[in-house]
Amino acid sequence: MSKYFLHGSLNAKEGKGEELAGILLEASALVSKAKGCQLYLISISPEEPDTVWVTEVWDSEEDHKASLKNEEVRSLISKAMPILGGQPQQGQTLVNLGGHGV
Amino acid sequence: MSKYFLHGSLNAKEGKGEELAGILLEASALVSKAKGCQLYLISISPEEPDTVWVTEVWDSEEDHKASLKNEEVRSLISKAMPILGGQPQQGQTLVNLGGHGV
Repeated sequence: MSKYFLHGSLNAKEGKGEELAGILLEASALVSKAKGCQLYLISISPEEPDTVWVTEVWDSEEDHKASLKNEEVRSLISKAMPILGGQPQQGQTLVNLGGHGV
Repeated sequence: MSKYFLHGSLNAKEGKGEELAGILLEASALVSKAKGCQLYLISISPEEPDTVWVTEVWDSEEDHKASLKNEEVRSLISKAMPILGGQPQQGQTLVNLGGHGV
């Protein structure tokens, strides 16, 4: 069955990439318990240390949206907001057809 | 431990996106047995039906390279070559720090 796939970048203020990655790793521990969360990976680019990439697979878009209403998740989002930079986000919203690992 | 992360697009010739996705889903079954392969996902964009996205996590870049020498994998690459289009690839090579799902 096809799943909801997100791959996108978040940009931290200069020098704050590591801190942002840490907050997102905390978020991954939280959403791992959320309904429908199959994958939530945090990655960085060695060339752009203040850009953090999040790759998510959810059973449905609705499950993803519902997770953003979770109070602990919202608290982490608030923690990340002040260190986010103004760079535009990149990435894709896709339909995952399957594969190995989820 | 950090892992080798690839997210990239392959472009099929017009009308061949579904066939390309099918070949890559076959590849995912093969590489699921390869050393160090944690994730190999096939996704599509509803807006670009001839673009297929492959998202991979490997224990190391070496494991990924070694998988490309596998004879069955090479045979599938040969099967895909004639239906690939000329569009440039997009995507990222990243360092996965962890998260949920791999």
